[in-house]
Amino acid sequence: MIFTISQEALLDAINIIQRGLPTRTPLPILNGIKLEVKEDHLVFTSSNSDLGIQMIVQDESLEVLATGQTVIPGRYLIDITRKLDGPVEMSLIENKVLLIRSDRVEYKLHTMNVEDYPEVNFLENNTPIKFSAALLKEIIKETNYATSELEKRPILTGVNFKYEDKKLYCVATDSYRLSQKIVDVDHEMEPFNIVIPNKSLDELAKILDYSDGEVEFYIAQNKVLFKIDNILFQTRLLDGVYPDTLRIIPTEFPLSIKFNKNDLLKSVERVSLLSPKERDNQYNIIKLSVKKDQSVEIASTNSEIGDAHEVIIPAEGIDGPPINIAFSSKYLTEALRAFSSNEVVLNFAGEIRPFVIKGDLDENMLHLILPVRID
Amino acid sequence: MIFTISQEALLDAINIIQRGLPTRTPLPILNGIKLEVKEDHLVFTSSNSDLGIQMIVQDESLEVLATGQTVIPGRYLIDITRKLDGPVEMSLIENKVLLIRSDRVEYKLHTMNVEDYPEVNFLENNTPIKFSAALLKEIIKETNYATSELEKRPILTGVNFKYEDKKLYCVATDSYRLSQKIVDVDHEMEPFNIVIPNKSLDELAKILDYSDGEVEFYIAQNKVLFKIDNILFQTRLLDGVYPDTLRIIPTEFPLSIKFNKNDLLKSVERVSLLSPKERDNQYNIIKLSVKKDQSVEIASTNSEIGDAHEVIIPAEGIDGPPINIAFSSKYLTEALRAFSSNEVVLNFAGEIRPFVIKGDLDENMLHLILPVRID
Repeated sequence: MIFTISQEALLDAINIIQRGLPTRTPLPILNGIKLEVKEDHLVFTSSNSDLGIQMIVQDESLEVLATGQTVIPGRYLIDITRKLDGPVEMSLIENKVLLIRSDRVEYKLHTMNVEDYPEVNFLENNTPIKFSAALLKEIIKETNYATSELEKRPILTGVNFKYEDKKLYCVATDSYRLSQKIVDVDHEMEPFNIVIPNKSLDELAKILDYSDGEVEFYIAQNKVLFKIDNILFQTRLLDGVYPDTLRIIPTEFPLSIKFNKNDLLKSVERVSLLSPKERDNQYNIIKLSVKKDQSVEIASTNSEIGDAHEVIIPAEGIDGPPINIAFSSKYLTEALRAFSSNEVVLNFAGEIRPFVIKGDLDENMLHLILPVRID
Repeated sequence: MIFTISQEALLDAINIIQRGLPTRTPLPILNGIKLEVKEDHLVFTSSNSDLGIQMIVQDESLEVLATGQTVIPGRYLIDITRKLDGPVEMSLIENKVLLIRSDRVEYKLHTMNVEDYPEVNFLENNTPIKFSAALLKEIIKETNYATSELEKRPILTGVNFKYEDKKLYCVATDSYRLSQKIVDVDHEMEPFNIVIPNKSLDELAKILDYSDGEVEFYIAQNKVLFKIDNILFQTRLLDGVYPDTLRIIPTEFPLSIKFNKNDLLKSVERVSLLSPKERDNQYNIIKLSVKKDQSVEIASTNSEIGDAHEVIIPAEGIDGPPINIAFSSKYLTEALRAFSSNEVVLNFAGEIRPFVIKGDLDENMLHLILPVRID
């Protein structure tokens, strides 16, 4: 195995492929990146218990002198590639040592046994759904933050993708708040209902940063494959039945208030400063009140430190009854940040019922937050 | 106590004064910032077991309606001040609660008992040494990194400032490497020999970022005071006798090699990539060799991972015997970064003797690194 390639092309590939390296693994071989050198292209593969990534490199700077394959210690290959400059030559010596040369520097890296690298079966069959990379990134940004970080109910640590009647429902919830995005799909398909782990979606979002093209989305029983340009990104699915969330979303709202999103964000951040830190998020509570004179105020109290309150001016006149509702300021902040709209509407169904946030520009998106009871 | 001030002026003061807050303290009152409101200025004070900072604020935006004094929880005052906008009003209610108002937000902070705040006696007597803030910052940057982080020999956790015969010797060493800067002082003074804790110098350097004026430096038995514009910065000194380091610096160098600093830095970083991580720094070893043909090479070996080597081209021809010397790449990298010169000279006294680094533009500065024995 001998080839040369530009440092830029190599770094681009490594930046993608490193997303599939495990943070910790009982299987040391997975700390390596598998490299197959073919006659006119390279194939990089990485995988861990959740996902597998494969990338084909066909750069014009690539010159293959001898084909071959090996597994290279991942962290070292990343560190080295970042520091190199100009053309890079790689060659395998006696199937054991990878010689990397660039300019006046030379590395000899002990490789891992390519026979030990587990086969990753990339799924590619039947008809895929097609998205723009931008839309898929948007869906992840708008839903993934609302998944649960706790393993108590594992199914909630993923985003639910459900297809029915030419609509794709994307939902995430940690049972205290929920995010839902509905995407129209223009061709008919078999219905499906799957849950993708949030960590896999985090990595996928980072890879999508490198693409502005189209993504093909293939679905099987227990895994899904995203095909992005010359990259295959496959992740396992979560087992179990995702809760039916549609029925917990209120539909009647006696009170709706429109806010400038950035003004509201800043006010919430200012008032939350006194919320006790370093405790369970549940305690990070602020109170929103609409008075009889229709003025709106948010406030927080911290018995040890003091309290804060701020009057906020809605973007439009208010039509509805007074209200007094308390909730996590973190949940509101994260929900607001997921909107692209400059103006958002908070829709209240009552003091102890979930409230719903919508944005002008984000028609098919909805965020819901459960209030907490206060005295 | 009632006054108003612009958010900018308040934030400037808080940014300085927060440097004196303790990270951890058995004396909770020190988590507070003392504020004295005088008829035409404010005085902020913070202190911990190492240092005390006092700042006088006489901003044109300041309007005092009633004088007074209090101690405000430091972290909260910082967080709040950062988030405010426009003029800020502060008033003390019943000596217990600080009311902070700005735009539509209002905070009520429980204050701490001002009687409990320990007196900080700021030293200001006899004749000070005067430096430009820029020079003092340079001295700290060039020496402080070489102090010891370990408490095994506490005296080495500070920088030695010794004045003799119109020269100020600034020296730091952790006993494996050393940095020395000699500054000419143009007026005669009493000799002194003091050691300033490295953490205090870190904080001082950050405060100097805000100044381009002159610094007055007052010295007493067990503490020193830096007066920077309207800021008093006082730190305790380390007890003990600083080792006489001059005698360990070699003066005869059979081999000197001039390098482009940035090229050398990059080469060292590339070759160090394989050095074992997460171990004692001592293990982060690279080897520099000058061959008989006068080519220069650096190399590292990691029995588990592999090895790296790079030929480096000196900036000038070499005149001297071949050498084979091993040392910590971290020490060399940190020393090189302390130089402003584009070209540096490595002066070798022998394979098992310390080597000395000098720079064209940094005449009064010298860095020394102890080699390690290799097989």
